[in-house]
Amino acid sequence: MRENKSLNAWRRGEQTIGCWLSLANTYSAEAISKLGFDWVCIDLQHGMIDYTDLAQMLPAISTSDATPLVRVPWNEPYEIMKVLDAGAYGVIVPMVNNRAEAELAVSACRYPPQGNRSFGPIRGALYGGRGYAQEANTQLACIAMIETKEGIDKVEEIVQTPGLDGIYIGPADLALAMGLPVSGDQPQEEHLAMVKHILSVCQANKVAIGIHTSSLEYTQKYLELGFNFVTLGSESGHMMKNAAKELAAARGTQEQQRESTGY
Amino acid sequence: MRENKSLNAWRRGEQTIGCWLSLANTYSAEAISKLGFDWVCIDLQHGMIDYTDLAQMLPAISTSDATPLVRVPWNEPYEIMKVLDAGAYGVIVPMVNNRAEAELAVSACRYPPQGNRSFGPIRGALYGGRGYAQEANTQLACIAMIETKEGIDKVEEIVQTPGLDGIYIGPADLALAMGLPVSGDQPQEEHLAMVKHILSVCQANKVAIGIHTSSLEYTQKYLELGFNFVTLGSESGHMMKNAAKELAAARGTQEQQRESTGY
Amino acid sequence: MRENKSLNAWRRGEQTIGCWLSLANTYSAEAISKLGFDWVCIDLQHGMIDYTDLAQMLPAISTSDATPLVRVPWNEPYEIMKVLDAGAYGVIVPMVNNRAEAELAVSACRYPPQGNRSFGPIRGALYGGRGYAQEANTQLACIAMIETKEGIDKVEEIVQTPGLDGIYIGPADLALAMGLPVSGDQPQEEHLAMVKHILSVCQANKVAIGIHTSSLEYTQKYLELGFNFVTLGSESGHMMKNAAKELAAARGTQEQQRESTGY
Amino acid sequence: MRENKSLNAWRRGEQTIGCWLSLANTYSAEAISKLGFDWVCIDLQHGMIDYTDLAQMLPAISTSDATPLVRVPWNEPYEIMKVLDAGAYGVIVPMVNNRAEAELAVSACRYPPQGNRSFGPIRGALYGGRGYAQEANTQLACIAMIETKEGIDKVEEIVQTPGLDGIYIGPADLALAMGLPVSGDQPQEEHLAMVKHILSVCQANKVAIGIHTSSLEYTQKYLELGFNFVTLGSESGHMMKNAAKELAAARGTQEQQRESTGY
Amino acid sequence: MRENKSLNAWRRGEQTIGCWLSLANTYSAEAISKLGFDWVCIDLQHGMIDYTDLAQMLPAISTSDATPLVRVPWNEPYEIMKVLDAGAYGVIVPMVNNRAEAELAVSACRYPPQGNRSFGPIRGALYGGRGYAQEANTQLACIAMIETKEGIDKVEEIVQTPGLDGIYIGPADLALAMGLPVSGDQPQEEHLAMVKHILSVCQANKVAIGIHTSSLEYTQKYLELGFNFVTLGSESGHMMKNAAKELAAARGTQEQQRESTGY
Amino acid sequence: MRENKSLNAWRRGEQTIGCWLSLANTYSAEAISKLGFDWVCIDLQHGMIDYTDLAQMLPAISTSDATPLVRVPWNEPYEIMKVLDAGAYGVIVPMVNNRAEAELAVSACRYPPQGNRSFGPIRGALYGGRGYAQEANTQLACIAMIETKEGIDKVEEIVQTPGLDGIYIGPADLALAMGLPVSGDQPQEEHLAMVKHILSVCQANKVAIGIHTSSLEYTQKYLELGFNFVTLGSESGHMMKNAAKELAAARGTQEQQRESTGY
Repeated sequence: MRENKSLNAWRRGEQTIGCWLSLANTYSAEAISKLGFDWVCIDLQHGMIDYTDLAQMLPAISTSDATPLVRVPWNEPYEIMKVLDAGAYGVIVPMVNNRAEAELAVSACRYPPQGNRSFGPIRGALYGGRGYAQEANTQLACIAMIETKEGIDKVEEIVQTPGLDGIYIGPADLALAMGLPVSGDQPQEEHLAMVKHILSVCQANKVAIGIHTSSLEYTQKYLELGFNFVTLGSESGHMMKNAAKELAAARGTQEQQRESTGY
Repeated sequence: MRENKSLNAWRRGEQTIGCWLSLANTYSAEAISKLGFDWVCIDLQHGMIDYTDLAQMLPAISTSDATPLVRVPWNEPYEIMKVLDAGAYGVIVPMVNNRAEAELAVSACRYPPQGNRSFGPIRGALYGGRGYAQEANTQLACIAMIETKEGIDKVEEIVQTPGLDGIYIGPADLALAMGLPVSGDQPQEEHLAMVKHILSVCQANKVAIGIHTSSLEYTQKYLELGFNFVTLGSESGHMMKNAAKELAAARGTQEQQRESTGY
Repeated sequence: MRENKSLNAWRRGEQTIGCWLSLANTYSAEAISKLGFDWVCIDLQHGMIDYTDLAQMLPAISTSDATPLVRVPWNEPYEIMKVLDAGAYGVIVPMVNNRAEAELAVSACRYPPQGNRSFGPIRGALYGGRGYAQEANTQLACIAMIETKEGIDKVEEIVQTPGLDGIYIGPADLALAMGLPVSGDQPQEEHLAMVKHILSVCQANKVAIGIHTSSLEYTQKYLELGFNFVTLGSESGHMMKNAAKELAAARGTQEQQRESTGY
Repeated sequence: MRENKSLNAWRRGEQTIGCWLSLANTYSAEAISKLGFDWVCIDLQHGMIDYTDLAQMLPAISTSDATPLVRVPWNEPYEIMKVLDAGAYGVIVPMVNNRAEAELAVSACRYPPQGNRSFGPIRGALYGGRGYAQEANTQLACIAMIETKEGIDKVEEIVQTPGLDGIYIGPADLALAMGLPVSGDQPQEEHLAMVKHILSVCQANKVAIGIHTSSLEYTQKYLELGFNFVTLGSESGHMMKNAAKELAAARGTQEQQRESTGY
Repeated sequence: MRENKSLNAWRRGEQTIGCWLSLANTYSAEAISKLGFDWVCIDLQHGMIDYTDLAQMLPAISTSDATPLVRVPWNEPYEIMKVLDAGAYGVIVPMVNNRAEAELAVSACRYPPQGNRSFGPIRGALYGGRGYAQEANTQLACIAMIETKEGIDKVEEIVQTPGLDGIYIGPADLALAMGLPVSGDQPQEEHLAMVKHILSVCQANKVAIGIHTSSLEYTQKYLELGFNFVTLGSESGHMMKNAAKELAAARGTQEQQRESTGY
Repeated sequence: MRENKSLNAWRRGEQTIGCWLSLANTYSAEAISKLGFDWVCIDLQHGMIDYTDLAQMLPAISTSDATPLVRVPWNEPYEIMKVLDAGAYGVIVPMVNNRAEAELAVSACRYPPQGNRSFGPIRGALYGGRGYAQEANTQLACIAMIETKEGIDKVEEIVQTPGLDGIYIGPADLALAMGLPVSGDQPQEEHLAMVKHILSVCQANKVAIGIHTSSLEYTQKYLELGFNFVTLGSESGHMMKNAAKELAAARGTQEQQRESTGY
């Protein structure tokens, strides 16, 4: 079976950088995945994307070396199973509140006896290749998001769930759970303290730890803190940021020009 | 009928800035069109987009004030008519070589007796509103691309075609037509000279003149030269440029971090 | 944030008329929404529509002033959250049986601390504009359907759920719950009595009350009774009704003609 | 091979009624086609429909007895061949100007030696059944539209084209060709005179004659005149007509109610 | 209402053969369904198919006499209801573990008072025809899969669930539940013993029994054992099997040719 | 730039085997392309596929080593250019009748000065990699079909067109052009003689020669004759052939069983 390069990097304690995919489009998925990111993640929760789109995007990503991850819309076993069957090499599961919910997510990722995943990895096996049935349980990453009040309180029991490969932090939901206002990459001090707390629990338990950002600045900050997988924005975010910046600059030129030419 | 703000700005000799759309996606089309561009142009020629996609993207663009233009795949009358029926407020027609071809394009944009457009503006009238049948001939922009050897030679006869609203320059094809290598925004001096020549013919004939760029630098340069409509890159270009730049910077951080932490 | 005109009208005790959307199609969605309905509702439960289609239809509706509502397929939090992220300004939740279920629906519509909606309003914020994060909890309508035996019995506790904005009655399911046969707009007297009962509970608790119809006659009847939002059929219903009626009339002509001309 | 019931009815001099399909949607196509129309016509010219949609709609229509016709976007041989391969049982070809163009259309509909249609009727044969290769040349209808100035002048030579099965009149384009304003079903007297002229030429040459309408009134009028196939509006037209009429009536009720209740 | 031919055959104790559909494609669905299978089953669990695709595929299947079944992704009531509304004549529900879960599935298939299916059979009624509301509860097949450890243990209580029409065995999941490795059609003896055990419980309770295979050999074996409905592979399996076999044979020819011609 | 392995094999006089793709589906395209075929060809002429589908299928094929070819719907320059921009590494152009038409096809495949292809290889360059602009003219295969009466007569002038890489024979159209009935792989002797004639002209002019088959038998026959590229059926053909064969065998079993068990 094809190796899960990102998961194995995390197991070796290494750091990786990925990109978020929010657009239902194969061309942008293929182009971004070929830029050199270690992994990309198709967002079925907040992205404007559904399974029908994902089934087209995963093959496009498979033309690259980037590991294909998917954020499922919810901790719903069949949604997890269906994206794994389509060839995802890992799932990020939103809003995991406690041990039981973490176990539910892990179980959906593993064939019996480790879990209750139903067998039928139609495109998964096409992408993974020979040995998929035997090795999938150890090569597909199951990642839980800690971003609710209950999840924060129970971070240790979640992190220690057998079979769980990683924790992912959603800064905005974490802020809301802490009673903080949503604000970009969440620059509040208590937010950073909480992020560091979750990081330390993961490191103590040798579980990979990742976090979402929407900027280079925060990606750098979290890499320095030791995160194993950091999201350097989304494809639509990159698009909007550059377009807005250059349009403003061009409008400046245009205004200036208008004055000097008398239009 | 809803006014064609971009076309009327050009008629007043004003300058506008637009964005190219190459992704078959409604969300990116809607988001870009709300950034403040004067117009956006869906590219059916080189973009990864077909009519089926365009029919979804045009309504999304209609949530904004940006004028919806479409580059048709070819100077093919029925392709022009079909995108106008879907609600485009102008077409950019590739590779127009001479007066007869320019007249063919204009004719496809105008109802009789000015042209031979067939009547049935299903979504066009929904977007344009009352008076569409009476005013469409004067509100929909017909723009010819000059970018072939023959087109260069016959620029005057093309520009003087009755009913033609504008000329658009494709720098890469223009370079190939001149025997120059394709190279980004085409920094060659003889290329610039040719661009200025076409510009001057248009200005002399009071026909709007536009050009494609893939950078802020060239957008500014052409605005300074007096172009009426300049394309400030494509949504996928903005996406790739920013993602690549930030990934390189983050990798730098990551490498540095790796050294200092001993990973 | 863009105001929710329909919700605010209901809060002022006003009456509104909407149209149901059952076809997975952007053109019909856009055309219907521009006819002057106060709101339109995309039906993900019984309509032939899924999220992939909805993501195209919502922008098309956004070209109009009609408030975009969505009937979700079930009282499933992540389905609710996903359509709100796509830009719905309200959800109609089927088959709410009791207070706990009503609270589940409300919670999915509200960011913490009022609920547990996850943050990431990608197109919602694009449509809603500045202030979305701060005001969404008060501008997005959460509407529960009362249409089961248990729901009928517990109408008061449902209606009094904090944060619930409205109740919607599905006449056919209500009939089945009452042991009555399904029959068009349900002309049975006991059905009407039950509808009036639910109406009075809503009015007593100052909660907006709506109902589904498939005819002008019943729309008028319910407006006279004081309903705040009444559905005047679906786009596919309007299509079929008019086509069938005119075909029958034309066939009459045709038959007549056939006799007189001897075909 | 499955019989072309509509074509054979026309050959017997009978009258038929059809419905136009402008929405890219399988459900509306299936529902309309089951209402009892003799044929339905998918509009690839002015409808918001492309081949990708048509490939889904034709099977849906095949659940009914309605003959599936397609208006191709233009008199372009490969567009004609491609829709026949997908299972259309006839094509309506827009804007045929003269004998040569009529022959081009007929040729695209017939396998050699009668024409130059390329062989590969993938879904056509699935729908048509055994004998398709042998009988398609006689069962698939080729219909030319007369709606341009030149077409009007050359109506006789067009009608007499060997292999041409019918003529279809587009009233709006015919009006424009005659210098008349576009206006609904074109109530002008000279328009009616021209329609009758084309009708008489077709009848004299025993070629089926059809016409487009957007109302019951005109459908009845043209049936009385002896037309073989009359289009009784489009599915989207039926939808809009009924929705607008009932909304206006309901608003009346609402206004009245508002006055009496003091809202 | 149109009769459910497959279900009624099972009720008479007859045997049927079906084909699995794993490709999101209307043409393959239509072509396979016309080959003479008694039923076809669209796989929303492991197939690369979602509701949006199914809504196109069901009409295509309706051009044939094959009974349209759907394997839903999970025992989730609203997923069941939604595919029935789209015109499925039966559902196969994965991983049913016990009586309560079986009752949940049955309830989702039946209108009150037998169940809690919500009313709105939009395309179901179009396909089923008059009488759908009255007869659907007896004509739509509810089939539970027994393929988990718990399900095996509780086979009797599941089979005896009132209203349950059939049991379907997934050989691979059954193997995993028994601690056996996944291996094609599962040739292990204890696997066969378990299959026979479930078969005998079904026969004793007069409940239809079906099973999945990926080969003619096993289809024949299970027909001989008395199964009521056996799946003779999937459309994609047939495709891959034949292509691989013929490619290998052709490569043989090519190698041989290469040797003899000296390429 | 990524090498065109199939084209270069032909240039070395080698033989290759490919598969035809007629289904608009990414999964079947990906699965077939990974079976070991040298190339696959997406059929935009007779296949149920349009550009929108192709844009999804090409990335899926790019996960394999198979060379992606596309049969365009017609010898229409912009259709050729658009599929090359999407990443096709060669086009098969139907119904080329003479030297002028062959030159038209070649020109559409080559950037100036060799041809008139417009520059903008958006996904082509993503797939081809660095050097695309410089090398595309020599790496993208232009293949003309000879299958019309005129084409047969002018085979030499077509084959000798500068820049033309290959000739492809469509046996059915060739038969029709010769006045022979369409019949599977065309077993007529005069058909074979004509095929050999075209083969010999190609070999004499060192132009690659390919042919379509729908069976292993004819693939083997043509490989033995020395063809450079032979199509071993289509994915839908493989599917239907195996399904029909196994269903017939299973029905045999079923009948037999019925007799012996007394059903």
